[in-house]
Amino acid sequence: MKENEKKPSVKIIPLGGLEQIGMNITAFEYEDSIIVVDCGLAFPEDDMLGIDLVIPDIKYLKENEDKVKGFLITHGHEDHIGALPYILKELPVPVYATKLTMGIIENKLVEHGIENLIRKKVVSFGQHINLGQFRVEFICTNHSIADAAAFAIYSPAGVIVHTGDFKVDYTPVYGDAIDLQRFAELGKKGVLALMCDSTNAERPGFTPSEKTVGSTFDKIFSEHQETRLIIATFASNVDRVQQIINSAYKYGRKVVVEGRSMVGIIETAQNLGYLKIPENTLIETEQLRNYPDEKTVIITTGSQGESMAALSRMANGTHRKISIKPRDTVIFSSHPIPGNEKAVSKVMNELYGHGADIIFQDTHVSGHACQEEIKLIYSLVQPKFAIPVHGEMRHLKAQARLARSLGIEKDHIFVLQSGDVLEVSEDEAKVTGKVPVGNIFVDGLGVGDVGNVVLRDRQHLAEDGIFIVVVALDSANGIMVSGPDVVSRGFVYVRESDELLDEAREISAQVMDRCLERRVGDWNKMKNAMRDELSDFFWKKTKRRPMILPIIMDVAE
Amino acid sequence: MKENEKKPSVKIIPLGGLEQIGMNITAFEYEDSIIVVDCGLAFPEDDMLGIDLVIPDIKYLKENEDKVKGFLITHGHEDHIGALPYILKELPVPVYATKLTMGIIENKLVEHGIENLIRKKVVSFGQHINLGQFRVEFICTNHSIADAAAFAIYSPAGVIVHTGDFKVDYTPVYGDAIDLQRFAELGKKGVLALMCDSTNAERPGFTPSEKTVGSTFDKIFSEHQETRLIIATFASNVDRVQQIINSAYKYGRKVVVEGRSMVGIIETAQNLGYLKIPENTLIETEQLRNYPDEKTVIITTGSQGESMAALSRMANGTHRKISIKPRDTVIFSSHPIPGNEKAVSKVMNELYGHGADIIFQDTHVSGHACQEEIKLIYSLVQPKFAIPVHGEMRHLKAQARLARSLGIEKDHIFVLQSGDVLEVSEDEAKVTGKVPVGNIFVDGLGVGDVGNVVLRDRQHLAEDGIFIVVVALDSANGIMVSGPDVVSRGFVYVRESDELLDEAREISAQVMDRCLERRVGDWNKMKNAMRDELSDFFWKKTKRRPMILPIIMDVAE
Repeated sequence: MKENEKKPSVKIIPLGGLEQIGMNITAFEYEDSIIVVDCGLAFPEDDMLGIDLVIPDIKYLKENEDKVKGFLITHGHEDHIGALPYILKELPVPVYATKLTMGIIENKLVEHGIENLIRKKVVSFGQHINLGQFRVEFICTNHSIADAAAFAIYSPAGVIVHTGDFKVDYTPVYGDAIDLQRFAELGKKGVLALMCDSTNAERPGFTPSEKTVGSTFDKIFSEHQETRLIIATFASNVDRVQQIINSAYKYGRKVVVEGRSMVGIIETAQNLGYLKIPENTLIETEQLRNYPDEKTVIITTGSQGESMAALSRMANGTHRKISIKPRDTVIFSSHPIPGNEKAVSKVMNELYGHGADIIFQDTHVSGHACQEEIKLIYSLVQPKFAIPVHGEMRHLKAQARLARSLGIEKDHIFVLQSGDVLEVSEDEAKVTGKVPVGNIFVDGLGVGDVGNVVLRDRQHLAEDGIFIVVVALDSANGIMVSGPDVVSRGFVYVRESDELLDEAREISAQVMDRCLERRVGDWNKMKNAMRDELSDFFWKKTKRRPMILPIIMDVAE
Repeated sequence: MKENEKKPSVKIIPLGGLEQIGMNITAFEYEDSIIVVDCGLAFPEDDMLGIDLVIPDIKYLKENEDKVKGFLITHGHEDHIGALPYILKELPVPVYATKLTMGIIENKLVEHGIENLIRKKVVSFGQHINLGQFRVEFICTNHSIADAAAFAIYSPAGVIVHTGDFKVDYTPVYGDAIDLQRFAELGKKGVLALMCDSTNAERPGFTPSEKTVGSTFDKIFSEHQETRLIIATFASNVDRVQQIINSAYKYGRKVVVEGRSMVGIIETAQNLGYLKIPENTLIETEQLRNYPDEKTVIITTGSQGESMAALSRMANGTHRKISIKPRDTVIFSSHPIPGNEKAVSKVMNELYGHGADIIFQDTHVSGHACQEEIKLIYSLVQPKFAIPVHGEMRHLKAQARLARSLGIEKDHIFVLQSGDVLEVSEDEAKVTGKVPVGNIFVDGLGVGDVGNVVLRDRQHLAEDGIFIVVVALDSANGIMVSGPDVVSRGFVYVRESDELLDEAREISAQVMDRCLERRVGDWNKMKNAMRDELSDFFWKKTKRRPMILPIIMDVAE
């Protein structure tokens, strides 16, 4: 290659929807080849009323369908795999993942009835996968779910290391510690770019090992031998469940698992050998009555205060099989994810209301690397370019500051927005374009049939309700045959005697009369006139703006 | 008094609405006298759609109107004074408060146009007020707003000490340190019951002095002499504002105040002498352009990420006068109140997006007593009975545990629910009844016209929208003259070609035809039949349940 010849460059394109609300999906493109790392969903923000899930708009991948070689999945959390069943229906390419991750994905594909339509390849750590112009190596890391992988992505432009979500756990509960040697080896040979998890980049120090939680559980079990224990944690944290089961076995307690998602993941993990449960330890909820309270422990979903989860239903008295008793000890083995603090507090208040005791501290460690771990990875990999990933803008910026503090030049650090096309070569890296990205709302069975118009209507309805005026018009003779009738929902409490609605009906009648007198033939004009006058009237009287919906029916013969 | 004669007892009744969502209002009743401590509002929970404020239902006080001697207000925060203008319209009794507190209350009464209808008495610390069978002494405490008071309530049954919201600040910015000697003196003479702030009862240690924040500000001002500073804090924290102004003056910066509520409170505090601003320090927002950035500081509302506050508008680019610049340093002088974490993060992400720097730590201290301070008050007051107040159930329970740890017997500690009537005498205390309590929703100008039915409708509309079917019927001849016409809002995105709505119209027509054929005369039956069939149809097709609203118009001549 000549001195002044341009070095080959690879494109890195985050596709995770607008405003980065948590969907992890990144495309890597080189000439005729595209590979995609992760395919996550996001949970709706507060203003996305009635929406169940948000998935990324993959217009760009669809437009380049022939190039797409497959999805590479780092680990089995919803924000990394949740959109797969929806996206694979549109773009049925192969999926590559480690064993447990693939087990969890398969459950999803079965639910959606597409498990036989998709090629799936289980990959081991150390294995390399060839995908067009790319080759991808799976590297062992640690996280709050087993079998998490980092990727070394070999491209003609150089090697890109993508950590996925990770922490450094020297003593993991299951499997091996993160393969730091391999990160070092890659770094020694030369790494073009590092894409590193930023979630905890604002936190100093090191995240403790998952194993430290195990000894805390042992202590709690030993100190609470007189009461029933109820332990809430994340459904997918198989290692946490393993440690609870270990303590339960040690202290002779039977274990009940509550919550659909947890039962599902435990079954998968057990079938694949990621969870070892001693015989006669697990019992059904119905069998609880056969054992004294102090000989049982309930592991349950709902540690984030999710309103439909098992723990919330126990707390508010709507669980069909389990009621909280005054001597129960409830352990929250989790930290509230930002945004869930109030929901968690609500559940705690309800539990206290039933007289239960609560243990809220010391039974959780994060699954993400803190500042010292991030610095460790940078020092091993020594990348030319740094591209912080995973986290909100504040977290990405925090990692950018860390990278700066390690001596990486400011113009070698890239905090990308969704849709940015970053072209990286040995010589330089820069954002050279923008591809279309967006959020697609899933509501019930509908994927994408709720757009911004529908959402805006829901917000309007939620705020002040709706006011409907119906008029039957004989358009041939220009006379009002019936009405105006008025109906409201979610606006004001309607008493029989309510003057407000009577006045509103009167105003509507006047508007109609006036329009008919002046021979206004355009119904839209009539409707607009009604909307304007009623809107002013309601604002003056109530300082509210209900949605006003005039309906005119033609009853001309 | 004979040995076996019953000792006099006083009733303590928390009236703060259902589920204790933050409204502080407590009645004390003895024979023909009732006094009320505080009269706060609450901000709506997430599921209270479209509601602006929540105030307590004072049915019990109205029923005993003749007994009510007045409101005693501990300090000027919304959760202690916010409902006053609404409640005083119903129950125009005198209000007693310290000077700054009364100044803030007066602003509210002026806004509501009732300042001349209410008797107001400004009370000094150490002063006693006679109110029927009660006498109330105002005692100096510290809090995150100046002029906070505790009350010693003298009743024929004994003395009750109510701390209000408080902390122990040995070096307050304005005024005196909490009057610990008086608490001790009262304790020495004998206190029947202590009602103590529980907000921080889960936190060990001592809350630092407000003054510590001042030295942190000095340090920040000295280290950031090259950039503009924007400092967000609570509008009502006058001492915080004072310290920012002190640092600004020291480092030669001009000060702009942004946010309507902050401008109002600063004006009141300045007029009453609670805030000293050196001449030529405060400037108008428009004058910012006359000074270099590094010679200005903007004090603003919005530290909790409130979407309409000044800081949020600067961050999202909708503030009319101030835009964030890449070199700005934004300081959050506050902690997110539980529930606001996500909103605060959103603002931070937007600020980072504009290239601003953010300082998020060390510039805030709490206004509430931590465990060691609570223990101190208990040790000084040595009450016979403990009644934890202020805070959620989890906080009240935490204080109950503290009281237990100090040797107070379990049956002398009362965690009350709203409406509980606690009768306390020298001999015993017990809950002897329940009075009606509740939440009243304020929406625009409406107080109480949005009830649970309207809220449920709003929730339903927010979730899945509305589907309306209109039919014009000639009831005399039993024929459908026009329709069914269908309209939907917030349900699905309607394309011209949408089959779903066509099918729904067809189903509605079939139901009508069937009803007319069978000569169903009852319109409600027709409507119910339509509702049922459409509901099943939509659920099957979309897994959604829009509100279905059939409207039948009679056009019989």
